[in-house]
Amino acid sequence: MTEIIRPTLVVDKDICLRNIEKMMQKARENNLHFRPHFKTHQSLEIARWFRNAGVSAITVSSVQMAEYFATGGWNDITIAFPLNFLELNNIMRLAANIKLNVTIENKDTAELLAKNLSVPAGIYIKVDTGYNRTGISVSKTEKMDAILKAISDNKNLRFKGFLTHNGLTYQALSTNEIFSAHYDALLKLKALKQHYKKAYPDVQVTIGDTPSCTIATNFSEVDEIRPGNFVFFDLMQMNLGVCSFDDIAVRMVCPVVAKHPSRNEIVIYGGAIHLSKESMQNIDGKESFGRIVVYKEGRKKLLSERNYVSRLSQEHGILKVSQKNIDLFNIGDLIEIIPVHSCLTANLARKYLTTEGEEIKTINS
Amino acid sequence: MTEIIRPTLVVDKDICLRNIEKMMQKARENNLHFRPHFKTHQSLEIARWFRNAGVSAITVSSVQMAEYFATGGWNDITIAFPLNFLELNNIMRLAANIKLNVTIENKDTAELLAKNLSVPAGIYIKVDTGYNRTGISVSKTEKMDAILKAISDNKNLRFKGFLTHNGLTYQALSTNEIFSAHYDALLKLKALKQHYKKAYPDVQVTIGDTPSCTIATNFSEVDEIRPGNFVFFDLMQMNLGVCSFDDIAVRMVCPVVAKHPSRNEIVIYGGAIHLSKESMQNIDGKESFGRIVVYKEGRKKLLSERNYVSRLSQEHGILKVSQKNIDLFNIGDLIEIIPVHSCLTANLARKYLTTEGEEIKTINS
Repeated sequence: MTEIIRPTLVVDKDICLRNIEKMMQKARENNLHFRPHFKTHQSLEIARWFRNAGVSAITVSSVQMAEYFATGGWNDITIAFPLNFLELNNIMRLAANIKLNVTIENKDTAELLAKNLSVPAGIYIKVDTGYNRTGISVSKTEKMDAILKAISDNKNLRFKGFLTHNGLTYQALSTNEIFSAHYDALLKLKALKQHYKKAYPDVQVTIGDTPSCTIATNFSEVDEIRPGNFVFFDLMQMNLGVCSFDDIAVRMVCPVVAKHPSRNEIVIYGGAIHLSKESMQNIDGKESFGRIVVYKEGRKKLLSERNYVSRLSQEHGILKVSQKNIDLFNIGDLIEIIPVHSCLTANLARKYLTTEGEEIKTINS
Repeated sequence: MTEIIRPTLVVDKDICLRNIEKMMQKARENNLHFRPHFKTHQSLEIARWFRNAGVSAITVSSVQMAEYFATGGWNDITIAFPLNFLELNNIMRLAANIKLNVTIENKDTAELLAKNLSVPAGIYIKVDTGYNRTGISVSKTEKMDAILKAISDNKNLRFKGFLTHNGLTYQALSTNEIFSAHYDALLKLKALKQHYKKAYPDVQVTIGDTPSCTIATNFSEVDEIRPGNFVFFDLMQMNLGVCSFDDIAVRMVCPVVAKHPSRNEIVIYGGAIHLSKESMQNIDGKESFGRIVVYKEGRKKLLSERNYVSRLSQEHGILKVSQKNIDLFNIGDLIEIIPVHSCLTANLARKYLTTEGEEIKTINS
């Protein structure tokens, strides 16, 4: 810690390994193929922690990320993002070299792909169980049929199944709401699978959200899980009841640069370009950009929700702290901020540092 | 444009040059030293556009940024951020090689600096005219005196004056409110300057916010301006009435990957890691992450505020568009998003592209 002089994302490797092991265990117990999403860490070095734990197939959210991990020897990759036809050449290069699955959610793209793809690729149809971000609504099988028809014209394209991301679980206000959103999705996906099983006996269902994958116990008719955030977790997942504080593997370590006791504020070097402007509602109804860990008598202490990151400029973070805690902060101290959304915070860090002082490179290094 | 296949920040050089020239003109007319803030573009190449226009002194918001620009030959730099004492060695290296000014806002840091700095540096005291982010409240001269006393112990430290950033102008709801916030700050800074003029005849006042620097006409007792955002401008500045659409020099060009007419939504490849999660309130009261420019009959058209970026995931952007505009979007099209806050969007782009196709490197390249 003594070498940190600037905002630095510190990753606790032991916690990551435990999070990975737990999720693999979950997959094994439920007979699910495990294809973790690597958009959270975007790092070949952290990818090796997964490899050492036995992972060989991964998910990414962009062609660029697929290219990055392919250079690191990953050769079974699903791009879980609606296919961007402008990247066709890049997709072809990838598909020529690795086992690549792409995601389609409309006939236009399916037809373009069928006309142009000259190398083998697996095809997932992106379906929507109610989150309303992307994908074909599970009931609109005529749209799926149109895609299936289009891709049947090209022998390189192999239909693998239905891919979904139930983002509704991130909006839940209780673990019960997560279970309920997950169960609702399961029923819809089960019906969909039944509908296509005759024509496509090997049709798969693959789901992705960290909340369901972490706390649900029913994965009936699901073949594969693709969670990503669980490797780091964050404040959002902790608030959902999906993880505990001890499961969060990342924090942004920041120097204290100013104190304003008259308004119970501390200024840190650590702003929107370090934490991201992702926020959540704090216990007092205000916007929070993170919670605070301080060192007190040689031990780390997570301060209560009355203490939080209340404002972010480009490089400044303003902490609101309760009056009794003001003296825990001294200019020149390093404190830790638990990020609201670790994926966005990690993306902003060009490299990470492990708690053991090892530097970790990423796609942005 | 035809070579863009992924979210790409495009910079219009002509607009930048015009924005730079206008601000220099403003400075000249008002007899102000011009020390533009380079945190917005963070690019040595764009810095050259300033150099060619006659700029030789700059502002940055971190030691890291000062190091970057110093390597590019910039040798007169003010770090307009409360001094982070943990970076003392880096500050010393810089101060040994260039004309460096640092910003102090508390006695603790002043004393540490006075005790340790062995190379010359200019000192600005950060003062607060009411924004309440950092700095000493303008009325608390006893705190400023304590800093002045502390730095007088070290002959390397030369007091230059008072530095402030009136961020209140970014929260204004009309240009009148900007004028009023600016005028209020002017009065306070004038009183402060008078108070110290006897003891420090050369004491300077330096201000920084783009709204005031752009539209105010009264700079009484101000010696220097440090605006940054004006080089690119953005939706926030346009909404404040500080610039027009034609003054905005950046846009994120994004591929259209899906259409959902049943809910008037378009999905683009372009998410929180491209635009940032900075938002503003849209005309309909909803959160907006950007506005949309489409190509229609060979011409660019800024769509009305009824069409905007309504949600962002890591890589996805969801556009809400009015029903009549749905057919302006086709899968595979490139569209342009005008960012809410160009500084954060530019920071996320590792490089830019000019409208003429020239690649521009940045501190993040």
